[in-house]
Amino acid sequence: MSKQSTLDEIVKLIYDAKNILIVGHRLPEGDVVGSALCLYFALQKMKKNPYLYNQDSIPKNLKFLPGVKKFSCLLPSAKKFDLTLMVDVGEKGRVGESFLNHPFLGKIICLDHHAVSVHEGNLNFVLPNASSTGIVVYHVLKALGVKKLSYEIATNLYCTLITDTGSFRYSNTNRETFELAKLCLDSGVDPWLVARNCFETQPLSWFKMLCDVVTHMEIKMGGKILMASVSLAQLKKTRASLEQAEALASHLRTLEGVQVCAMFIEQKRGFFKISFRSNGSYDVGKLAKRLGGGGHRKASGCEMQGPLSSIKKIILSELRKNLS
Amino acid sequence: MSKQSTLDEIVKLIYDAKNILIVGHRLPEGDVVGSALCLYFALQKMKKNPYLYNQDSIPKNLKFLPGVKKFSCLLPSAKKFDLTLMVDVGEKGRVGESFLNHPFLGKIICLDHHAVSVHEGNLNFVLPNASSTGIVVYHVLKALGVKKLSYEIATNLYCTLITDTGSFRYSNTNRETFELAKLCLDSGVDPWLVARNCFETQPLSWFKMLCDVVTHMEIKMGGKILMASVSLAQLKKTRASLEQAEALASHLRTLEGVQVCAMFIEQKRGFFKISFRSNGSYDVGKLAKRLGGGGHRKASGCEMQGPLSSIKKIILSELRKNLS
Repeated sequence: MSKQSTLDEIVKLIYDAKNILIVGHRLPEGDVVGSALCLYFALQKMKKNPYLYNQDSIPKNLKFLPGVKKFSCLLPSAKKFDLTLMVDVGEKGRVGESFLNHPFLGKIICLDHHAVSVHEGNLNFVLPNASSTGIVVYHVLKALGVKKLSYEIATNLYCTLITDTGSFRYSNTNRETFELAKLCLDSGVDPWLVARNCFETQPLSWFKMLCDVVTHMEIKMGGKILMASVSLAQLKKTRASLEQAEALASHLRTLEGVQVCAMFIEQKRGFFKISFRSNGSYDVGKLAKRLGGGGHRKASGCEMQGPLSSIKKIILSELRKNLS
Repeated sequence: MSKQSTLDEIVKLIYDAKNILIVGHRLPEGDVVGSALCLYFALQKMKKNPYLYNQDSIPKNLKFLPGVKKFSCLLPSAKKFDLTLMVDVGEKGRVGESFLNHPFLGKIICLDHHAVSVHEGNLNFVLPNASSTGIVVYHVLKALGVKKLSYEIATNLYCTLITDTGSFRYSNTNRETFELAKLCLDSGVDPWLVARNCFETQPLSWFKMLCDVVTHMEIKMGGKILMASVSLAQLKKTRASLEQAEALASHLRTLEGVQVCAMFIEQKRGFFKISFRSNGSYDVGKLAKRLGGGGHRKASGCEMQGPLSSIKKIILSELRKNLS
């Protein structure tokens, strides 16, 4: 892990800055969007001039979040920032090209909870035990003197909690997660509103894709491994997003007996994003790392090129090696 | 609501009793099983002689719960009980025939969170704002002097929390839910273990049934109503349980735009259990009540007899009346 900065150092930089850029990784999910918006509202209250940028557009199911329209997919190259806050990501490259090449970013502060990432900020504040980057942001807000969470901040914080814990199911759920969830409700958060948008709104195409995938999925090693794929044609036909296809992987992991689920999602012709999901007994984070990707013990991913059948063979052989 | 008894009155009855029967409604789910087991462990610690009974067997996905083997499906008619604790149910009839006809039940205490039920206990303690009956039981345990939750009690209590809130998603989730969830983690509860068993273990047959149901479901009123059915033959073929079929209804409710999902589950030839799920804008509790059933605003059910096509017509006409 990179050298950890103190909250005092971070607070000082924020106090001294006026124009502040807030960014997260491409293909933003609940934790990026929620964390960035928490910061946006707090900085605005402090009479700062925050600018919210993400290279990719915000997924449809997060469009209900207060303030979400403040996000821009454009990063004007002439705009000068005194300070940049990078949330839920350590490597600048994962934010995107425009960001990498921007000449006026000021100092960069990384706020994250992924201990395994390389943190390329000038200052890095990483809490590996935090369920979400939103919680890391919460600690920064407290240090900045935010006493009570507004409804807007609380709803965005709550979104980071439920998305990164799979609705308080994953083992990263801890007492602080519940403590903050309670705090969010005190600020008026409607749990069903957030949960329904984040988890419980799927287009018909998604259900059809699910059925198609279930019909064609392969079960290996006596049921321990499940391999399924979504083709470019299927993605186009169903207009499903990458997030929705990835959600399928988490869904299929629930199949009784399955220890690892590998989901092959074709992004460009012959170019696959592979999402791994494990029930915890097998570390798919290590597997993804060996294949040039990254992630956690139970959820990880990598990218591979080639005919699907060859890629599947490689993955299966990797899995066989380490799965007893 | 029936007359509410005080915790003092309840505690006194429990102190004075030795042989205590603990029962819940037929087709037990997480809240019945977890609540009953919390009481079982606490009473055992108090050197009482608790007896756990449910007419129906425990669903497979709850078999991981500590103490679950203590449940019996037999209620010996000669066994004399000093006291009976009825959890998560108000009407004796919903516990079953053997219970109704048992001559030696002692006084009956109802512990419940369903305000709309008729509570037929000699003493009734009902907390309508509690997310689960488990929370009601928690208040009784505190009154009985239980200071710290054992791992066994905490895991069972946690099970009631996550099953009755749909993993902290439904609007009955409140600050007390999160407060108790935190307390459960303090006692060593593993959130992933409980969530995986309660929500994330589905047999292959369930996936196949899902696909079959999705293929044949009917969408009405421009997408606001979804009607789907599971036949007796499908249930037999897939060996899916009634709970699993009902879980399908919650699953299908997530279809974008759907306000009400009605799931017709054939239990005997021509005899249907109908599960209603709503996204909250339409009160399916009232609908079920009009049809002789019961439940909540977002989840309810009733039973109807006849050819499926006629039943569907009745339901559709009822829905059309009140759904704008």
